[in-house]
Amino acid sequence: MNEPKFAVDSPYLTSFGGKFRIRDAPTLIVDKKRDKLQREQQLASLVAELSELQHVLYADNRYSLLLIFQAMDAAGKDSTIRAVLSGVDPAGCNVHAFKRPSDEELEHDFLWRTSCRLPARGQIGVFNRSYYEEVLVTRVNPALLAAQHLPHATALPKLWKQRYRSIRDHEQHLACSGTIVLKFWLNVSKEEQRQRFLSRLVQPEKNWKFEAGDLGAREHWDEYSQAYEDAINATSRKWAPWYAIPADSKSAMRLAVAEIIVKTLKSLDLRYPVSTPEQIASFDAMKRKLGA
Amino acid sequence: MNEPKFAVDSPYLTSFGGKFRIRDAPTLIVDKKRDKLQREQQLASLVAELSELQHVLYADNRYSLLLIFQAMDAAGKDSTIRAVLSGVDPAGCNVHAFKRPSDEELEHDFLWRTSCRLPARGQIGVFNRSYYEEVLVTRVNPALLAAQHLPHATALPKLWKQRYRSIRDHEQHLACSGTIVLKFWLNVSKEEQRQRFLSRLVQPEKNWKFEAGDLGAREHWDEYSQAYEDAINATSRKWAPWYAIPADSKSAMRLAVAEIIVKTLKSLDLRYPVSTPEQIASFDAMKRKLGA
Repeated sequence: MNEPKFAVDSPYLTSFGGKFRIRDAPTLIVDKKRDKLQREQQLASLVAELSELQHVLYADNRYSLLLIFQAMDAAGKDSTIRAVLSGVDPAGCNVHAFKRPSDEELEHDFLWRTSCRLPARGQIGVFNRSYYEEVLVTRVNPALLAAQHLPHATALPKLWKQRYRSIRDHEQHLACSGTIVLKFWLNVSKEEQRQRFLSRLVQPEKNWKFEAGDLGAREHWDEYSQAYEDAINATSRKWAPWYAIPADSKSAMRLAVAEIIVKTLKSLDLRYPVSTPEQIASFDAMKRKLGA
Repeated sequence: MNEPKFAVDSPYLTSFGGKFRIRDAPTLIVDKKRDKLQREQQLASLVAELSELQHVLYADNRYSLLLIFQAMDAAGKDSTIRAVLSGVDPAGCNVHAFKRPSDEELEHDFLWRTSCRLPARGQIGVFNRSYYEEVLVTRVNPALLAAQHLPHATALPKLWKQRYRSIRDHEQHLACSGTIVLKFWLNVSKEEQRQRFLSRLVQPEKNWKFEAGDLGAREHWDEYSQAYEDAINATSRKWAPWYAIPADSKSAMRLAVAEIIVKTLKSLDLRYPVSTPEQIASFDAMKRKLGA
């Protein structure tokens, strides 16, 4: 096999051999070296570095970067995307939040709606939730499958295995085609989620962020945890790695995500294009035309 | 009539009465108050302000913002979009560059391809070129019309008038539906364009930005100027104003664009949503559920 390797060294990189266990995964980064202000300063410098790397990614015109974020509610997906990516040129970065599938989307296979939103060459694409919802929310709520009108009655465990394989094959294809697929699972503790929900309810200026449905998934916490663990084990590969980022400290989480993205881009041989001798010859004619 | 007013006071706001004349429009902002560094510092503070305004625009959930950029090549569309909008949350900002229409796009009316890319409520959309190409590049090169298979043989002056009306009606509809349409024409001089083209040809690290076709439009400079003037006069209205921004100084141009965007958003009554008494009552039940 000859797949590219897009995984970089990180304490949060998950096993490629199915050995990732949520019960052993920390939910809090204990950063004794830096205080919050220092972390924010370091994040600012990583954001600036990412902005420059994005420019080379665009000029280089061979790779695209796909960042997938999955997490329980209130883990900080939106704010992490904002903190890490406010600074890149929005002309080269598309963020898409995948919500409850529309009727039109349900009439297609489960990879269709995200495929239409994949980043073009030279671009950064961000999926806030993704096709992984099909082995997370759909797995915990299999009644949702009815709307998909699947032709074969497949036993559920086998159906999830089919979907893991579809996802693995899809990501392998993307990686071989030049798409760098990085997947972040923001690992928030149940207690931290409780406190964040409460602060949305207690502080009037945060009320608008709270949706009544947010409490629903919380009641199935253990089933969701098992679904995340199984999905990560089935699909974390060197060409499409999952990083399990402890999410109880937002500043440390954002820094960890930014570090992995920057490190990954720097591990590639991105470069500005060099003109061919033929192009350089044609430039001389144009310079004369412009009166140089 | 009851259209909203989205135009703000600016020396670069064009006439709503058809009196805009390119020959009287400056191509250089002479800024004696600030040097380049001071302009860059002021731009940074406007970018930060825009990022906050974007957050309220999103929470407010009534308006969307559409920024249209049109200009001759090398006027600085891409770099202005990057300078003014790198800093907003890319999750709430979509930039789309419209290039030569695809075969599929040509099989639709000329407003179709941009309509599919309009910003959703709460979002910022940026069009790098737009449906205005249909009264600019197509007007200067009417042979392009053949690919559109129009059913009626319409005399050309009348066809452009029809298209201006289509555009006016479209923008009036958008404005009445909550889309703030701001249009920027970046007014670069022919001599400044010549120098920018030459620097792309002379500096190897800028070569990749140069396309051989870039010289073509330059040969039709006067026809393009007339087309811009006519389009601006036909479509600059208080609910969808055109600003003619002098483009020979990039730092001053970027600052002028950022000032107009920020001023426009501040002129609206954007606010964070307030919970209703019913919502507040339902929050109490949820707080108890969360063990508060």
